[in-house]
Amino acid sequence: MDIAAYMAEVGQQAREAATAVARSTTAIRNQALLATAEALDAARPELAAANTKDLDSGRSNGLDDAMLDRLELTPARIDTMIEGLRQVASLPDPIGEITGMTYRPSGIQVGRMRVPLGVIGIIYESRPNVTVEAASLCLKSGNATILRGGSEAIHSNQAIAACLARGLSEAGLPANAVQVIKTTDRAAVGELITMPRFVDVIVPRGGKGLIERISRDARVPVIKHLDGICHVYIDSHADPEKALAVAVNSKTQRYGTCNTMETLLVDQEIAADILLLLAKAFREKGVELRGCNRTREILPDVAVASEEDWATEYLAPILAVRVVDGLDGAIGHINRYSSQHTDSIVTENYTRARRFLTEVDSSSVMVNASTRFADGFEYGLGAEIGISTDKIHARGPVGLEGLTSQKYVVFGDGHIRT
Amino acid sequence: MDIAAYMAEVGQQAREAATAVARSTTAIRNQALLATAEALDAARPELAAANTKDLDSGRSNGLDDAMLDRLELTPARIDTMIEGLRQVASLPDPIGEITGMTYRPSGIQVGRMRVPLGVIGIIYESRPNVTVEAASLCLKSGNATILRGGSEAIHSNQAIAACLARGLSEAGLPANAVQVIKTTDRAAVGELITMPRFVDVIVPRGGKGLIERISRDARVPVIKHLDGICHVYIDSHADPEKALAVAVNSKTQRYGTCNTMETLLVDQEIAADILLLLAKAFREKGVELRGCNRTREILPDVAVASEEDWATEYLAPILAVRVVDGLDGAIGHINRYSSQHTDSIVTENYTRARRFLTEVDSSSVMVNASTRFADGFEYGLGAEIGISTDKIHARGPVGLEGLTSQKYVVFGDGHIRT
Repeated sequence: MDIAAYMAEVGQQAREAATAVARSTTAIRNQALLATAEALDAARPELAAANTKDLDSGRSNGLDDAMLDRLELTPARIDTMIEGLRQVASLPDPIGEITGMTYRPSGIQVGRMRVPLGVIGIIYESRPNVTVEAASLCLKSGNATILRGGSEAIHSNQAIAACLARGLSEAGLPANAVQVIKTTDRAAVGELITMPRFVDVIVPRGGKGLIERISRDARVPVIKHLDGICHVYIDSHADPEKALAVAVNSKTQRYGTCNTMETLLVDQEIAADILLLLAKAFREKGVELRGCNRTREILPDVAVASEEDWATEYLAPILAVRVVDGLDGAIGHINRYSSQHTDSIVTENYTRARRFLTEVDSSSVMVNASTRFADGFEYGLGAEIGISTDKIHARGPVGLEGLTSQKYVVFGDGHIRT
Repeated sequence: MDIAAYMAEVGQQAREAATAVARSTTAIRNQALLATAEALDAARPELAAANTKDLDSGRSNGLDDAMLDRLELTPARIDTMIEGLRQVASLPDPIGEITGMTYRPSGIQVGRMRVPLGVIGIIYESRPNVTVEAASLCLKSGNATILRGGSEAIHSNQAIAACLARGLSEAGLPANAVQVIKTTDRAAVGELITMPRFVDVIVPRGGKGLIERISRDARVPVIKHLDGICHVYIDSHADPEKALAVAVNSKTQRYGTCNTMETLLVDQEIAADILLLLAKAFREKGVELRGCNRTREILPDVAVASEEDWATEYLAPILAVRVVDGLDGAIGHINRYSSQHTDSIVTENYTRARRFLTEVDSSSVMVNASTRFADGFEYGLGAEIGISTDKIHARGPVGLEGLTSQKYVVFGDGHIRT
C-alpha cells in the first residue's frame, strides 16, 4: 500500500466532503447524528464481533489489563456512545451566528460570522468510543473529520465507522465527511499531520508522549493538551472549612484526571493549623504526602518532596505539599511549576483573590472552587473535544466553538473606498 | 557571536518582561506609548543619522529605488509613527475584559477573561516604521515583543528601539518588553521561530516567500498572511451602477494591496452589456484585461487569460476576467482559485447574496461593497497587525484582540465536584 497516495486520497475526499458539510443545515447534521445513534444500536452484534477480534489480538500481543479495559466495547459503553450522539444533536448549532454587526463611518456594515474550520484530524489511542465522540463534535460544528485510532482498536473503529457512514448517508451527507483511516501503518500519522492542503487542524488525544511527538512533527496547527500540574493555594485568609473541602475534593474526587490537584500550597501563616487537619483528611483517603522542609517541621512523618515532585503530574494518590510565603510565594511557585492548566486559591480576601485571577497565567483560574470543575460539561460547553493548554485559538476546555472560526461579513450598497 | 545563546537570552528576557507587562495597568501601558512618541519626536536627529547610514549602505549594496523608498524615514513618516502611537494609546484596552459569566447548575460561576498571549515575535522586511507599529500593538495588548527587521534597516531599527526603551522605562516597565534583535545574522530568525519556551506566536510581515519559509520551519504558531487573490462577482441581478463602482474601485483604488481585486467574474446573462461598460472604465484607468474565451467573444481585443492567470496575485494594473454560469459558476471558481482573503458579490437578489455569504469560504465576504474595505481600520479594529488568511486563532484583519487569548475564570464558595 502506498501510504502517501492513500492519505492524499483520504485528504482530498475530506476536503470535498467538508464543503458539503459546511453548507448543510442544522437539521441535516442533527439527523445524521441521530441516524448514527440508531445505526450503532442496530449494529450491536457487529460491534461486539469486531471488538472481540481486537481484544483477542490484544491479549495475544500482551496488552495489559488497563489497556484491554479501555479497548472493550461493553453494552454500557455502546449505550453511552448512543446517548452522547443524542446529546450532541440537542446542542445549539454554533455555525452561522453573526455577531458584532455595526455600521462604520464609511457606511458599510461589518460583523463576524461563525464558520467551520474545515477538516479536522483526530489522533487517539485505544478507547474506540473516542471515534464517535470526536466525529460527532466535528460534524455538529460543520467540519469533516479524519480519524486515526490506535492500531489495537482497528476492527472496532472500522465497525463504528460503518455506522457513521450509514448515519451520514441517511441524512444525505457524503459518507467521507467522517473517515477512519484503514491502515495501522504509522506512516499514515506522519502524512496526516503534514497535509496542510487537506487538514486544517489536528487534535491529538492521548498521553504526553504522543502529543509532544505530534506537535514536534506537525505542519498543521495542533490543538494540544499536555500535562495538568494543578495547584490549590490555601491563603492565610482562607475559610478553613472551604479550604479542607476544596483541597480534598481537588485531589481525591478522581486521581487519574488532568484537572486533579498535584501540589498543595499553604501560606506559612496558617500552615501549622491547617496542615494537621489536611494531613488527617488525606491519610483517611490513603493519599501519600510529600512535603517541603517547612511542611515536615509540622508533619514530621511526611516524605521529602524533591525538585522533581513540583514538576510531576502524579495521576495517583500522591500529593506534593509546600509551605509558601503568602500570595507572592504561591504565585511564584505556580508560574514556575504549573502546566498552566488549572489553579485555585482559597481565600476570603478580595484583593488577593483578584490578584490571583490576574497574575496566575493558567487556562482556568479559580477562587474557592475545586480544580476538578475544569471540564467542558461543568463549564456548560455541552461537550468537550479536549482541554487546550495552548493560548492560540482555544484555551482550556474546548467545545464546539473551538472547532470553528469566524469570517468577516460586509454589507454595502455599492460602497467604494475613497 | 553565539547566535543560539544570544537568542535564548533575548527569549528569556522577553518571557520575564512579559509577566511585568501582563500585570501592568492600562494607564501604565498607555503612558509608555505616549512617552515613546515623545522620545521619537526628540530623537529626530538620531533617527535621521541612523537612517542615512542604512540608505548609504543600501545604495552601495545596490538596493532598487522601491526598496530605498520603503527604507527611508522621512520627517512625515516619523510624524506618522508618532501619530500612530497616540492612536494606539487611545484605543480601548482589550485586557481583563470578562465575558459570559454565568452560574452553572453546580453553583459555580464561570466566565472568560481576556489575557495577553505572552511573547510575540515579529519578522518583517525593509520598512522601519513597522518596528513602532508592531511593538505598540503588542504592548497595548499586554504582550512582550521580539522584533526582527530587515538587515538593510538595522541602524534605523536600533534607533527606534532606543526610543521604545526610553518610553518603557519612563513608564516603569522593563525595557526588555520590546527587544529589537541586534544581529543581522539569518540564524537569529531560525532560532526565534523555534523557541516555543520563550515565544508564543510569530507574526511575519512581508512577501509570500518570507511567510512560506517561516511557516514551514516554525515550531511556534504563526499568524500568517499569504496572498490576496480577491474576486468580485457581478451577478445577473446586479445594479449596473453599483457593479461598475465596486468593480472599478476594487481594482484601481490601489494596485499593490492584498485586498485589491485580481479576477472579475461576470454572470453570462449580463456579460454582453456590462463587460462593454467595464472595459471602457478599465481602459480609462490603464488596466490591462485578460479574459476567458467567452469574455473575448464580447471584447475581442482582450488578451487570453491562461490557467495561471486565475491563480495570480498581480499587484499591478492587470485584471483577469471570466464569464461564469451564474452563482454556482462563480462560487465554484472562487473556492478553487481564491486565496480565501476577500471576495465580493454585486447583486440585488436576497437569496443569492445569502448563498454567497455562506458558501464562499474566505476571511471576508461582501455584498455590494469594494474588496478594498478589507482592512483593520475600515472594520473598526482601530489598528491592524496584519490580515490572517488562516482559520485558526485569527481570521481576516487582526487587531488587538488577535494578540490576546482568553482564560476561564471560576468563582465558588467552597464548591466541590460530586
